[in-house]
Amino acid sequence: MTFVKGKVKTVFDTDNPDEVLIQYEDRVTAGNGKKELYVENKGSICCEISRLLFLMLEEEDIRTHYITMPTHNSMCCRRVEIIPIEVVVRNIAAGSIVRQTTLEEGEIIDWPLVEFYLKDDAKDDPLLTEDRICLMGYGDEIDELIYQAREVNAILKQIFREIGLTLVDFKLEFGYDSNGNLLLADELSPDGMRLWKEGTKESFDKDLFRKEEGDIVEAYQYILNNL
Amino acid sequence: MTFVKGKVKTVFDTDNPDEVLIQYEDRVTAGNGKKELYVENKGSICCEISRLLFLMLEEEDIRTHYITMPTHNSMCCRRVEIIPIEVVVRNIAAGSIVRQTTLEEGEIIDWPLVEFYLKDDAKDDPLLTEDRICLMGYGDEIDELIYQAREVNAILKQIFREIGLTLVDFKLEFGYDSNGNLLLADELSPDGMRLWKEGTKESFDKDLFRKEEGDIVEAYQYILNNL
Repeated sequence: MTFVKGKVKTVFDTDNPDEVLIQYEDRVTAGNGKKELYVENKGSICCEISRLLFLMLEEEDIRTHYITMPTHNSMCCRRVEIIPIEVVVRNIAAGSIVRQTTLEEGEIIDWPLVEFYLKDDAKDDPLLTEDRICLMGYGDEIDELIYQAREVNAILKQIFREIGLTLVDFKLEFGYDSNGNLLLADELSPDGMRLWKEGTKESFDKDLFRKEEGDIVEAYQYILNNL
Repeated sequence: MTFVKGKVKTVFDTDNPDEVLIQYEDRVTAGNGKKELYVENKGSICCEISRLLFLMLEEEDIRTHYITMPTHNSMCCRRVEIIPIEVVVRNIAAGSIVRQTTLEEGEIIDWPLVEFYLKDDAKDDPLLTEDRICLMGYGDEIDELIYQAREVNAILKQIFREIGLTLVDFKLEFGYDSNGNLLLADELSPDGMRLWKEGTKESFDKDLFRKEEGDIVEAYQYILNNL
């Protein structure tokens, strides 16, 4: 069985060439893998959260790679060719944008920002401008990625608002299936989002691990229980 | 006498509140000041190159801060309030854009790229997207900066082509004088440019120091003698 090992997920081939099995590992990493920890049950919790969010998005006509969840920590997904550009949506300034601009943490971004990063760990996932994306040959994808990202943002914001959390920012990855359909892919969990308890800056996401401020399993479990 | 000490230049107040004296030091730095060296005569050579380029640009109706050069290593300039955004024009891929995209060194950029960086040493001068510039409150300046940068690029490319050098990329800074005029400011020397000997990648710029490949004074002196 061939597989590709990522930082916190492993992607296995299946008998069906159009499908893959994505296994969520009991591991958390930060700083592009510089910091890493074994965390019991994290894999299944993230897998289950991703499943619920993919299903809720599908209900709102967002096309995703999700098919089924055959075990407690793996999902069967449509095989896609990933676009090597990570799409980040920001509703509130936090993280790298605070380090790289004059914006302050917590500043509300009225018209949510859609940003792009090169998916390349060796280069440390650098920020891309639209001009750079065009030079790299992905100019035709920009408008559709922005549109999809804004749609997903509107839906996720509402979902998290209903459970008392503010969606600060999040990362998406997209890919094309064998029929050329653009699908939302990868994972949708607090590993790739910032979520603050409403009206505060209390993290319910991977920042708990990055900043060593608390137990991620407890926070992630709260989200799973309430979704 | 009050003054502001930069990495390789010192700016002094003068008796005239609308003018400053900019002294070019015999120093070269790289990596945001991490690497530094005393280099005899470099100050006066860079000052003289800057003077010549500012004068050539003025002849082509680019407004600059340059007034006169009272000593061999200092220029009297109009006082400007610097826009804290560095403008970079790229004709060929080299340096950070190669580390941050899939472009390879030497790749020609057909429609020259105008990029923006936050002028903030403490943040390591991060790349800015146009959206980030708008959020920081400088959105109104973008179009004019792009226009000016393209004009300057067309003129400088021609000047260097005539002395057998290819203008790979360069950095500009702009500011407003007390009457609200936008002026090209800072310095125009091989410290802020990449120049390759025509048809090769042989550096005639600060990369000689960054990569420890040769004597910058010799290269800079060649440029000064031929301009």
